[in-house]
Amino acid sequence: MQFSSPPYVTGLKCLICGATYAHGNVFTCPRCGIEGILDVQYDYSKIDNSQFTIHNSPLNIWRYNNLLPVSPDLHPPHLHVGWTPVYDAKRLAKHLGVRKLFIKDDGRNPSNSFKDRASSVGVMKALEFGYKTIACASTGNAASSLACMSAAVGLQSYIFVPARAPEPKVTQLLIFGATVIKVQGTYEQAFDLCREACEKFGWYNRNSGTNPFLVEGKKTAGLEIAEQMKDDVPDWVVVSVGDGCTIGGIGKGLQEMKRLGVITGVPKLLGVQAEGAKPMYEAFYSGKELVPSDTNTIADSIAVGTPRNWRRAIHQIRQSNGEMITVSDEEILEAMRATARLGGVFGEPAGIASAAGLKKALAQNMIKPHESALVVVTGNGLKDIQSAKQAAGEALSIAPNLDALANALSEKLGM
Amino acid sequence: MQFSSPPYVTGLKCLICGATYAHGNVFTCPRCGIEGILDVQYDYSKIDNSQFTIHNSPLNIWRYNNLLPVSPDLHPPHLHVGWTPVYDAKRLAKHLGVRKLFIKDDGRNPSNSFKDRASSVGVMKALEFGYKTIACASTGNAASSLACMSAAVGLQSYIFVPARAPEPKVTQLLIFGATVIKVQGTYEQAFDLCREACEKFGWYNRNSGTNPFLVEGKKTAGLEIAEQMKDDVPDWVVVSVGDGCTIGGIGKGLQEMKRLGVITGVPKLLGVQAEGAKPMYEAFYSGKELVPSDTNTIADSIAVGTPRNWRRAIHQIRQSNGEMITVSDEEILEAMRATARLGGVFGEPAGIASAAGLKKALAQNMIKPHESALVVVTGNGLKDIQSAKQAAGEALSIAPNLDALANALSEKLGM
Repeated sequence: MQFSSPPYVTGLKCLICGATYAHGNVFTCPRCGIEGILDVQYDYSKIDNSQFTIHNSPLNIWRYNNLLPVSPDLHPPHLHVGWTPVYDAKRLAKHLGVRKLFIKDDGRNPSNSFKDRASSVGVMKALEFGYKTIACASTGNAASSLACMSAAVGLQSYIFVPARAPEPKVTQLLIFGATVIKVQGTYEQAFDLCREACEKFGWYNRNSGTNPFLVEGKKTAGLEIAEQMKDDVPDWVVVSVGDGCTIGGIGKGLQEMKRLGVITGVPKLLGVQAEGAKPMYEAFYSGKELVPSDTNTIADSIAVGTPRNWRRAIHQIRQSNGEMITVSDEEILEAMRATARLGGVFGEPAGIASAAGLKKALAQNMIKPHESALVVVTGNGLKDIQSAKQAAGEALSIAPNLDALANALSEKLGM
Repeated sequence: MQFSSPPYVTGLKCLICGATYAHGNVFTCPRCGIEGILDVQYDYSKIDNSQFTIHNSPLNIWRYNNLLPVSPDLHPPHLHVGWTPVYDAKRLAKHLGVRKLFIKDDGRNPSNSFKDRASSVGVMKALEFGYKTIACASTGNAASSLACMSAAVGLQSYIFVPARAPEPKVTQLLIFGATVIKVQGTYEQAFDLCREACEKFGWYNRNSGTNPFLVEGKKTAGLEIAEQMKDDVPDWVVVSVGDGCTIGGIGKGLQEMKRLGVITGVPKLLGVQAEGAKPMYEAFYSGKELVPSDTNTIADSIAVGTPRNWRRAIHQIRQSNGEMITVSDEEILEAMRATARLGGVFGEPAGIASAAGLKKALAQNMIKPHESALVVVTGNGLKDIQSAKQAAGEALSIAPNLDALANALSEKLGM
């Protein structure tokens, strides 16, 4: 069966050499090789922005279907993706010393991470191009997300995970019926093996780094931030950075909403990397080509030594007049506590690195106390309970009687 | 500071003796003791149901504020509670042999369980009555939910958990800043100790079984089901049953929406208990008083030997012309796989017992193939990863090369 093409997509353009290609089952630029990420192009003059402000558009990412590379002939997965809540976190703002602090909780997507935005577009592209099987390599969230979305639409999924992927994430994708291949090696090795396997076995490759359509799904977070915040656009949008696709996508979404007249200016992007995995931070401030690095951080979802989409990420951060910053694991754990205890949101380390980055940027006067910021929390804390335990503290254990309780409270808490 | 009372609440009525009491800081009926659960009464004639159909009512539980016992002077927690998605799960319906199957995924609440509906009302009552501290005993979800909502509004929380509470749930509530007291005993002992501690230390008691306001929060799931499904009201609503508050609340919500003219008939309730914890099932079919039982099931959230709200639950099930059923742990694990793989929803064992019950009810012809059913999934599977591992299967572990992959696929999967 042949499906019609996405109606407003005009083609794909290489982010390095600028060559353009027709819409189709393409990956990176043949001229520039694996580094030549393609960017989906639209005819914005034909897109009516009134769909973003009317009540009968669905409150999920498909309200933006005209800005997505999906065929109108295909039904999206039935799961509710996107339009995640934005919270005005007053107590956390006061604690951090910033005028206004908003939290966008993307841990509330179907598989509990931001990646569902990309995977839902990915499975639609696989169906459009006639595949029955889809694969990806992931440190965890893209994997569980792809397993979830594949289950929703009835695709088979093969997932390549590095040896260090946290158990809850692996369990999550096994329960969704994925075939899980634990690669005795790094994320980079899992990534390469997945690409080879897709070629050999004829599977569709969902990897956000090289698949040009996935980042369009991630873009929806930027589209949403613009629409949800258009009456009070934050000065900064703070995003943790691993592969570069998330911040690159959010930046693209914000720029599109400016182009379509939904917002008049684009917030500055603050990209946050872990101190133990900061090749993009180095490239951003050196102005040179990215140099791959080792990785050593509890924030597994952004522990990426060879980010595939670094050009897009750095381009978007610069275009927004933004900055980058790095945070230590200890700062991430502290931010996990603060965001949960003062904001009511429990995020995983990589998802909360953004909040740690905001705190540090305030301390360095990179972000000013009179400014406002929106922090994107990209994954639920339940996804990595071992790290959360490091941040959380200990329970009191007592015999079941009031005396034991009174003793424990007075001894341990000084009550 | 004095807050005005909930405007449409007329009083509280004992579910045993029928005595009525004025709205205030009350718990169970003084005449009937701890068994005398009080039910919040409203003047329905004054409630305008148009708020449930207009777009500018918020898409969360506070669209029903007139049907909730909350003071209009207080702001609800800033977290987005309720209005969880309902999915038309076609592939799972076909697999189970039922005409239509809807899944309402309440694992997508802020702390990833249904209990956020109750806790958000609970913290508002604590603030209304002037408390600075709130406590509860819980097998897990009510606890993490209360910790989350307390963090959101700035209340201190003390949580009593039984020794067997799963680690992810305990970690979740520690990260939200709760003081956690692990009681070396059963849920029942934790429950009693919490009640004594609240009296001794002057804390507000959030326990759903005896606190009359909490079940009103749970009711919102029934209100939502009525509003979300009013054009295609399912024949059955299937709910797992532990303490009885959840199904009792959902039943009350559905009855109220019938009374207010939003739906014309109330779906039959199917209450599902674990085989290893079925005192309510026994009481339902014997027609006698409930006899407390031992508990032995992986479905920890419904492993309740002494359900506090059994009268309300049984009353609501009977009023709906409903039924009860029990399921084994093996049936729950099988339903976890099927619901994830065919429905795209990963629930915890207690949250998925409902889906297992639907399958069994179809096999017993209690529910007919031509009928439709809505299954409430009450908690996210990430909350109990140890049980999920039992259901999930194993990953393949290979060296990072294509030959190792081809070998593993051909050996283990016959490809």
